[in-house]
Amino acid sequence: MLLLDQTRLPLHQEWLRLTDLESVCEAIRSLKVRGAPAIGVAAAYGAVLEMRRRVIDRTSMVGSGNAAHQTSSERMEAAEFLREFSSITADLRATRPTAVNLFHCLERMDQAASQICQESNFEAASVCEALEKEAISIHEEDEQLCARMGELGSELIPDKAGILTHCNAGAMATGGIGTALGAIYTAHLSGKKVHVFADETRPLLQGSRITSWELQKAGIPVHLITDSMAATVLADGRADLVIVGADRIASNGDTANKIGTLGLAILAKHFGVPFYVVAPSTTLDVSLDDGMGIPIEQRNADEVRQFLGHASAPTDIDVFNPAFDVTPGNLIAAIVTETGIHRPPYDFRSLSRG
Amino acid sequence: MLLLDQTRLPLHQEWLRLTDLESVCEAIRSLKVRGAPAIGVAAAYGAVLEMRRRVIDRTSMVGSGNAAHQTSSERMEAAEFLREFSSITADLRATRPTAVNLFHCLERMDQAASQICQESNFEAASVCEALEKEAISIHEEDEQLCARMGELGSELIPDKAGILTHCNAGAMATGGIGTALGAIYTAHLSGKKVHVFADETRPLLQGSRITSWELQKAGIPVHLITDSMAATVLADGRADLVIVGADRIASNGDTANKIGTLGLAILAKHFGVPFYVVAPSTTLDVSLDDGMGIPIEQRNADEVRQFLGHASAPTDIDVFNPAFDVTPGNLIAAIVTETGIHRPPYDFRSLSRG
Repeated sequence: MLLLDQTRLPLHQEWLRLTDLESVCEAIRSLKVRGAPAIGVAAAYGAVLEMRRRVIDRTSMVGSGNAAHQTSSERMEAAEFLREFSSITADLRATRPTAVNLFHCLERMDQAASQICQESNFEAASVCEALEKEAISIHEEDEQLCARMGELGSELIPDKAGILTHCNAGAMATGGIGTALGAIYTAHLSGKKVHVFADETRPLLQGSRITSWELQKAGIPVHLITDSMAATVLADGRADLVIVGADRIASNGDTANKIGTLGLAILAKHFGVPFYVVAPSTTLDVSLDDGMGIPIEQRNADEVRQFLGHASAPTDIDVFNPAFDVTPGNLIAAIVTETGIHRPPYDFRSLSRG
Repeated sequence: MLLLDQTRLPLHQEWLRLTDLESVCEAIRSLKVRGAPAIGVAAAYGAVLEMRRRVIDRTSMVGSGNAAHQTSSERMEAAEFLREFSSITADLRATRPTAVNLFHCLERMDQAASQICQESNFEAASVCEALEKEAISIHEEDEQLCARMGELGSELIPDKAGILTHCNAGAMATGGIGTALGAIYTAHLSGKKVHVFADETRPLLQGSRITSWELQKAGIPVHLITDSMAATVLADGRADLVIVGADRIASNGDTANKIGTLGLAILAKHFGVPFYVVAPSTTLDVSLDDGMGIPIEQRNADEVRQFLGHASAPTDIDVFNPAFDVTPGNLIAAIVTETGIHRPPYDFRSLSRG
């Protein structure tokens, strides 16, 4: 499995060859792959990769026995396959707690594995092949979701709009053209002139390293700003709307997204500009009434004490480092999923039942 | 003139020996010395330093002539001295446009020079000596102003308060214990238990490099956060007040301070916690009705594209880099100067006339 190491962008474009579960888990934990939808896709591929590796190991062992023995092994293998696969997806689930797409994608892989194994003529290698097809489907569907969200989201972007965005909700965060940036790309391709202000997004600088680089490559005018400059951009009337992605959305529209999003939503309200969220319906968590139940990942203190690995503070200073914050649904003018442009008050649970 | 290079804190404590005008101007421009009051003090000393250097050069030249010649030179010298001094203070004024203390301190030095030169028996060396005393007075007065602001500001800080601050308004920003941090130090010394959240303050990280280091050395509990985490700190109820310094305050209380301050004031209003400004009356600019007239310094794009010379974005990305923003007076619960705790609506012009 090849993965572009996003921690090294934009100066280094380094492709990693991931060959086992631990390397995939580490890539997710360390944000070499990040962005809620992209994490889900990477985890689905990672689960298949590791399962295939284990099956190959097992087959080479079983192959050394006789034919009668092998048949017995195969019958056992269906249950064992599921146990192994379930332990793999559990490890992948444990990598990051906030983005719900990870859990949704792995749940889908678990269900697919369970269903395929129930079918007659269990053969581990061909189950792996079927699971790979499932992972590819997840990937391709995400691409289609992005395209659809791009079309819908672009309707919210007027011609000549100044647009403020945070973190990276683009091609590098998804299996397609992105969520929030997908809407911007689609508006741009439809001929609208837009101008983007990209928050650098401390501590890990996804905005300066990835968003500004993506937009520049796409030929979209972009100014990079520090997170602290967003208020001035809005006060000066330079931005007509704020648009971001999401990591988990509760039934009432409360939205977990990269730390700093909540502040932007409050600023947008103060300055009377709309604040939009774009995310696939796989980002919805209708099991939650509101954002109170969303677990917020606390990351390593050195991310704040350092800047790209260079110390920028006393090395033992106490740090508070939540990776996400929760924006109340009532501050969000619209949540765009592939199913439509949703407006407050949000009730995604009824919507998913309807 | 010895100056601690603040761009190298906290990892390096390097003292610079400044010997001429250009080195002082460069130190101010590059933020080796920063903080509105400290810039004013440094500029006052810098003006004397350069004037003395020029007088010594001139004296050694004049000393080579005869006595009759020298008397004539001396009579010219009073006017020439003032012209030279005025050209020096003009160069110092041009270093940074926003903080008004710089202009006030240099104006005071110019007036002192003018008055001393009018006195009988002009002698360049003794005028320099008198000007040095004036610079020392400015420094010592700033120290006293800080102590007084500290007492007044600490009245606004309850016991067990969580306090959010931005940039550095401490000992390194003034000639004394600081403005906003001075209030915190005074509260701490009076026995109040306080806990500070220090914004790192991109792009130049005065919060992580200087504030967290100052507070740690003072034994005050402090958590360092990225600027984007302030909303979460407030949403979680961890901060009971926000307190910052200022670079220029218009008659109606509109306050220019480090970029990011405006956003904090809006967040404080949203979460219903008071937002305070602490600054000496030398930071007031009563010539301005409101903040519209405050010039905002735009700094080099590489400050946003880099940190300590390490690229963190495409090297040619467009950047918006205002060093300050303006917080409307109506978002400020109190402005503390050495003259008292002022409350909105502010009218510092009438106050200065009264």
